[in-house]
Amino acid sequence: MNVNVREAPKRVTLKDIAQKTGFTINTVSRALKNKSDISEKTKKIIDKAAKAMGYVRDAAAGSMRSGQTNTLAVIVGDIANPFFGTLVRDIEFNAKQAGFSIIIYNTNENSRQEEEAIFSAYSKKVDGIIICPVQENTDNIKLLQKLPLPFVLVGRYFRDIEVDTVHWDDVKVGELAAGYLLDRGHTNILYAGGPLYISSGTDRLQGYRDAHKKRGIRVKEDLIKITDIKEGKTRDAIIQVLKDKIPFTAIMAHSDLMAYEIIYALRGRFPHIQVTGCDNLQEKLMIPLNFPTVGSKEDEAKLCIDILMDKIQNKIGGKPVVKVLDVVLKTPENSIL
Amino acid sequence: MNVNVREAPKRVTLKDIAQKTGFTINTVSRALKNKSDISEKTKKIIDKAAKAMGYVRDAAAGSMRSGQTNTLAVIVGDIANPFFGTLVRDIEFNAKQAGFSIIIYNTNENSRQEEEAIFSAYSKKVDGIIICPVQENTDNIKLLQKLPLPFVLVGRYFRDIEVDTVHWDDVKVGELAAGYLLDRGHTNILYAGGPLYISSGTDRLQGYRDAHKKRGIRVKEDLIKITDIKEGKTRDAIIQVLKDKIPFTAIMAHSDLMAYEIIYALRGRFPHIQVTGCDNLQEKLMIPLNFPTVGSKEDEAKLCIDILMDKIQNKIGGKPVVKVLDVVLKTPENSIL
Repeated sequence: MNVNVREAPKRVTLKDIAQKTGFTINTVSRALKNKSDISEKTKKIIDKAAKAMGYVRDAAAGSMRSGQTNTLAVIVGDIANPFFGTLVRDIEFNAKQAGFSIIIYNTNENSRQEEEAIFSAYSKKVDGIIICPVQENTDNIKLLQKLPLPFVLVGRYFRDIEVDTVHWDDVKVGELAAGYLLDRGHTNILYAGGPLYISSGTDRLQGYRDAHKKRGIRVKEDLIKITDIKEGKTRDAIIQVLKDKIPFTAIMAHSDLMAYEIIYALRGRFPHIQVTGCDNLQEKLMIPLNFPTVGSKEDEAKLCIDILMDKIQNKIGGKPVVKVLDVVLKTPENSIL
Repeated sequence: MNVNVREAPKRVTLKDIAQKTGFTINTVSRALKNKSDISEKTKKIIDKAAKAMGYVRDAAAGSMRSGQTNTLAVIVGDIANPFFGTLVRDIEFNAKQAGFSIIIYNTNENSRQEEEAIFSAYSKKVDGIIICPVQENTDNIKLLQKLPLPFVLVGRYFRDIEVDTVHWDDVKVGELAAGYLLDRGHTNILYAGGPLYISSGTDRLQGYRDAHKKRGIRVKEDLIKITDIKEGKTRDAIIQVLKDKIPFTAIMAHSDLMAYEIIYALRGRFPHIQVTGCDNLQEKLMIPLNFPTVGSKEDEAKLCIDILMDKIQNKIGGKPVVKVLDVVLKTPENSIL
């Protein structure tokens, strides 16, 4: 059996490239920095040799000079959830444009894991944090406020603690989704919502109530089911509601992922039940949805990076920036696909 | 208008905690390290004060001593693709268990972006890299081999370059999916596959061919459609095939995400067409699929971390570890959901 035993490679230095090409270390260094006093021909020879030898410019020196690591932490509930996945993809893209890499932490919607993520990010000397907060309590947001580090909340906000935040108009999300169903004659709409300690949980429920009120329709409290946003919990809740034989003809789900779980639980046995979601995943991922959802046209990720870059460059402190993004209803009929 | 102007906080030191609590700096330090010569009562007082003041233990000192940053780079095609999303979630979980954080890079299946990711990871002094390689050419794998840094390939392998790799048995993937369709009477199976420079692209097509051969059924070459795995490309390819009126009754898709796009393109207009996917996303995300798919029971992410930790602890070099994971067919009937 022919097995390649790999030798541990060593870091290639300017000296190695100088020896290989016959130029001085100074010429090699200036060529790799693309200085104008080195001829194009020499640059080409040196660049080619550097690449072939696996030379990597050491960015750490520059980083130490500026006191920056050019790294941001992104702390989200669950990167596997395509809502967070698409958000993190866009954050990584915008961070890269600004010269930053991102460290990912999953909280699994657990405050303890969120605290560990914040500590880890801080001890790794990241330049800033983008976080979708767990919100079970205010300990971690207070911790963040104490750290000498800029941060931006994304997707969720604290009612009584004003910090840099980018989030959707979630009351309008609820109004649009419930309004869509009410206007199609559904008066018994099951509300499958996220926990009320999460701002979008409270606000989307408020929107659900407002949509009923505007149309003079009474909200039936036994149709409001607050479920855990963790995987599988929505499905379990819907199975329970079906067992309890609570009558309803439509379901407003907190998110598209929860809507998927609901459709999974219904498994085609209740084709008359109309489901709505939220997050507009179908435009981002082309997952074949056939339910209305709500999305925002604005670039959340870019807004987060812009705010953070401003704070990193101009130092933290000052008036908090709060961006509330407008939302629109997306139905299968008006989908761009 | 009442605006909270935030003061830039300063890093809390042991001295600050000592002043606040009245203990000596030495006692504070020993209490925070949970040393046995400090009473539980004192530890509680100091811990509480430290937490309230926002004290964060500086992990960088320890990191500098060991020469490690306790950070890994994870380089994937697109974190928004739930296949990569679930993989990265599991990698983050296993890395955390081992005391490591992860920096995420998206290549967008582009060699140039992959090269930049490798350079960035290296200059940030990560301790190791997990990468699903783009494979357009072998430049970047050769670059990785030159760096003094352990790395593991995940999901794809190079036929002629043996390095640490964890991947599925993709020939079997193709055999299972095509075999499922052939055994149900489909003899005109459209193959919607990924590029052949990707190992899973070649291997799944080989499996498709093998499944036909074993059953004595001729492969019709005009049914083999190699498409780009980038978002939207599969949908466009399917629309073209429908326009070309090439007759087929089933589609074997390279991945579940490509199967979604296909179902989107078919939009219920061709209910007789049976689609199969690959990746088994329904068990990971509860996305309501109703097509057969292929998955592995093994924990890819854990295997990658185990290999990488071994290389980090025992230094790189030595015989490459190649793990080929067995796969099974998952049909809606045998789904665990």
